[in-house]
Amino acid sequence: MHLSIDAMSGDRGPAVVVDAVRDALGADRSLAVTLVGDEPALRSHLKPTDQLGTQLRIQHASEVVTMHDAPAEALRRKKDSSMRVAVNLVGGGDASACISAGNTGALMATAKFVLKTRPDIDRPAIVAEIPARQNRVFMLDLGANTDCSVDMLHQFARLGAEVSSAIAGVARPRIALLNIGEEQGKGNDVIRDAAARFEDDSAVNYVGFVEGNRLFDDVADVIVTDGFSGNVALKTMEGTAALVADFLRDAFNRSTGSRLRGLIARPVLRRLKARVDPRHYNGAVFAGLNGVVVKSHGGADAVAFRHAIDTAVLECRAGMAAALSQQTDRE
Amino acid sequence: MHLSIDAMSGDRGPAVVVDAVRDALGADRSLAVTLVGDEPALRSHLKPTDQLGTQLRIQHASEVVTMHDAPAEALRRKKDSSMRVAVNLVGGGDASACISAGNTGALMATAKFVLKTRPDIDRPAIVAEIPARQNRVFMLDLGANTDCSVDMLHQFARLGAEVSSAIAGVARPRIALLNIGEEQGKGNDVIRDAAARFEDDSAVNYVGFVEGNRLFDDVADVIVTDGFSGNVALKTMEGTAALVADFLRDAFNRSTGSRLRGLIARPVLRRLKARVDPRHYNGAVFAGLNGVVVKSHGGADAVAFRHAIDTAVLECRAGMAAALSQQTDRE
Repeated sequence: MHLSIDAMSGDRGPAVVVDAVRDALGADRSLAVTLVGDEPALRSHLKPTDQLGTQLRIQHASEVVTMHDAPAEALRRKKDSSMRVAVNLVGGGDASACISAGNTGALMATAKFVLKTRPDIDRPAIVAEIPARQNRVFMLDLGANTDCSVDMLHQFARLGAEVSSAIAGVARPRIALLNIGEEQGKGNDVIRDAAARFEDDSAVNYVGFVEGNRLFDDVADVIVTDGFSGNVALKTMEGTAALVADFLRDAFNRSTGSRLRGLIARPVLRRLKARVDPRHYNGAVFAGLNGVVVKSHGGADAVAFRHAIDTAVLECRAGMAAALSQQTDRE
Repeated sequence: MHLSIDAMSGDRGPAVVVDAVRDALGADRSLAVTLVGDEPALRSHLKPTDQLGTQLRIQHASEVVTMHDAPAEALRRKKDSSMRVAVNLVGGGDASACISAGNTGALMATAKFVLKTRPDIDRPAIVAEIPARQNRVFMLDLGANTDCSVDMLHQFARLGAEVSSAIAGVARPRIALLNIGEEQGKGNDVIRDAAARFEDDSAVNYVGFVEGNRLFDDVADVIVTDGFSGNVALKTMEGTAALVADFLRDAFNRSTGSRLRGLIARPVLRRLKARVDPRHYNGAVFAGLNGVVVKSHGGADAVAFRHAIDTAVLECRAGMAAALSQQTDRE
């Protein structure tokens, strides 16, 4: 298993990427990584114990895509960017997957251009795990496609099921459609038509509509929606969790007495913090491409980036298993 | 100020409504309320100190709209429902506003049929306050209109500003459009065109796009969006807050030690709970009608219902002030 990693595009620079890679390589000796980026900079972040060789390589790239680059511009003008070179390594078959913490639009445009969209898919989608009470829940599309047809939503159902199986090991993922009510007539034409299509397709384990307040309740393993609503839901989750955390901090900081109570409650609050830690959900999959591309959050630290690496590894393993079973079927 | 209140349609029945009304009438002697519903049932909830007279009346209605009634059916077949009679009292000019905790779709259909939509508005919208760090934030549409034109979003901006001024007293409310990025080109055609329209209209104090994670950050007083995204955002907030609360409870219940820490932290956690208490946000305004209609949450208790009453009173006061100033302008 060989990953190509864009080490330059994250907000925190290559240091966190190198740390996460060191950690991942130490944990899995069968893993190999090519760090892509400015070679002198990357070398300066290596420790004496980090030996370049079969497990760890550096591929020089002279440019970096910034958050301000328009996707089309990044694609056309920065052909030697760390992002582009990392994706090229997957396109050329040298790497099984690539990871980047860079500009989402530029990464999607680059991935589509280099790897091409799968023949059975109209438009790739962004899939990520959201926190939940019991099960592991994946949602798509999270922002790649603002307007979606019934065909696209149908394809998203299949892509989401693939990711749920690959990453969470769910054999027959339950699929729900995000809607503004659970009753049959709710929503707009596209959603109602998509529901009918899901019901007719025995390959889709469709369980019905789900509303925003029940996303976390073990009603489905995959939530399908258009990229606008999905992005709104994902970011509203982030904002609400941060708001409640701030209110909690305010409540404990209100007086000397409440600060003391906070000191006593601290071990418990740390456990809560660990459970809602967004770093454990880092790593969105660009699904529907001929190749595995994982997008890390721009602000990821080493722990978060490590999670994105693990996501890429699981996606690759599932892809290899699928390819093997297809080959076996043919033989 | 005279309110007509549908006392029958909430999940908890008339008892909570009668309690909330008693509380509101005690606090404001200039307020009058007509309770609408089954007269014997309503009388059975009155206390000996609740005197029927000028401040408190009962208007009998023989039917109740249920959560399962389709809006059109409720409108056509239940002409003597507590909901319909309560709205009729506003339509006939006997009451200044009505409040119902019933079926949202039926209430909107009834309100539109009886009160009619304002001549300057295409479609009424549902507006409610969302929790925020500093300022008071109102969002619309929360589910009345799944697909919205640029004209409708433009009207929502005006309606939202009216509600913000009426309820939070903001003189020139800042208006933002919910989007999946803050940069100019983000979103779909309708949103980009709406942004251009808002910028051109000096009556709209437009401040730009806002993403789901910044709704609570004092960037705007009014968030404008279509009813699909608005409903998704609102319910995702509810679900996320409940999820974090559950995780917090789990963390404190994990062991005897953490339960002890929880006992010590309890006064602080109560303060947090009070701050995110959804009862303080109860009462959505149906904006854009010729008359004030406030929708309470179906499961509202007396505290929550009281908040819906206060919302109706503030809306009425603002309406009266506006009518007075128009009259003064004319004289």
